[in-house]
Amino acid sequence: MAISMYQASVPALVRLLGNLSAILTKAVAYAEAKKIEPRVLLDARLAPDMLSLTRQVQIATDTAKGCGARLAGVDVPKYEDNESSFDELQARLAKTIAFLNGLRPEQIDGSEDRDVTIPTRNQPLTFKGLPYLLYFVLPNFYFHVTTAYAILRHNGLDVGKMDYLGQP
Amino acid sequence: MAISMYQASVPALVRLLGNLSAILTKAVAYAEAKKIEPRVLLDARLAPDMLSLTRQVQIATDTAKGCGARLAGVDVPKYEDNESSFDELQARLAKTIAFLNGLRPEQIDGSEDRDVTIPTRNQPLTFKGLPYLLYFVLPNFYFHVTTAYAILRHNGLDVGKMDYLGQP
Repeated sequence: MAISMYQASVPALVRLLGNLSAILTKAVAYAEAKKIEPRVLLDARLAPDMLSLTRQVQIATDTAKGCGARLAGVDVPKYEDNESSFDELQARLAKTIAFLNGLRPEQIDGSEDRDVTIPTRNQPLTFKGLPYLLYFVLPNFYFHVTTAYAILRHNGLDVGKMDYLGQP
Repeated sequence: MAISMYQASVPALVRLLGNLSAILTKAVAYAEAKKIEPRVLLDARLAPDMLSLTRQVQIATDTAKGCGARLAGVDVPKYEDNESSFDELQARLAKTIAFLNGLRPEQIDGSEDRDVTIPTRNQPLTFKGLPYLLYFVLPNFYFHVTTAYAILRHNGLDVGKMDYLGQP
């Protein structure tokens, strides 16, 4: 018995992206009820040099699609990164979830030792699949979903930990 | 080939607890340099009904020690939860890291199907080891470490993503 690379990646990513989508739906209802311009929330950030809600959602989805694609050995889907509304962020979440759900376990299982290369601002980073997933993707992915949640909490949205985690 | 329960838990938890410790060290230096009363940071929160920095660190360590103990089938170490300074939070992080590092892979590997029960405010939750780790512990743990980081960033601490992630 052991964990498979698929179990440790796709279901965890899909679940939290779905939870993030539900949180954004609540944010839209909150903005309407309080007559808050949606852009105020989309542009909100926790510090002047932290990224906005929109960017947090973009990077969470980037991390998720990059993980699924690289572990499966397929091309990373390219997005235009031009979302400027909650509807467009929801579409981005939906297409990322659909992409991940289209990956079969047998494409990802066995990727523990596969070389994975990710572009960075400086030189590319190369990992084996296992440390890439466990020590890079997961902390990064949860970081951006949590920060999106925290930006909305800080701006008054009435959500709680169960909205983030989903039903266990 | 597959991932072991140990690989997916202890090294990931220890790494981020160490990173959190280093971030708190920077917070102390920042408070001293800016003549900020440490309690201001320890009590800081991102929303009135979110938990303070102190509680975020306590819950991150609770999640980590609970995970290691439950997967290994040993008693969860009891802490008094009375930390009121950065030094005491550092001691809590250090003892949690020491506890996790004292667990041997063979205690944790094979716990995928082990029943794990956690107390909650309502009735206890029971999981198998695998969903407990992947879909409950990890998102929770990263949530609290990220929120601790975000509270300090929001209060002006000059740290960045690499402080959170550590060197990949």
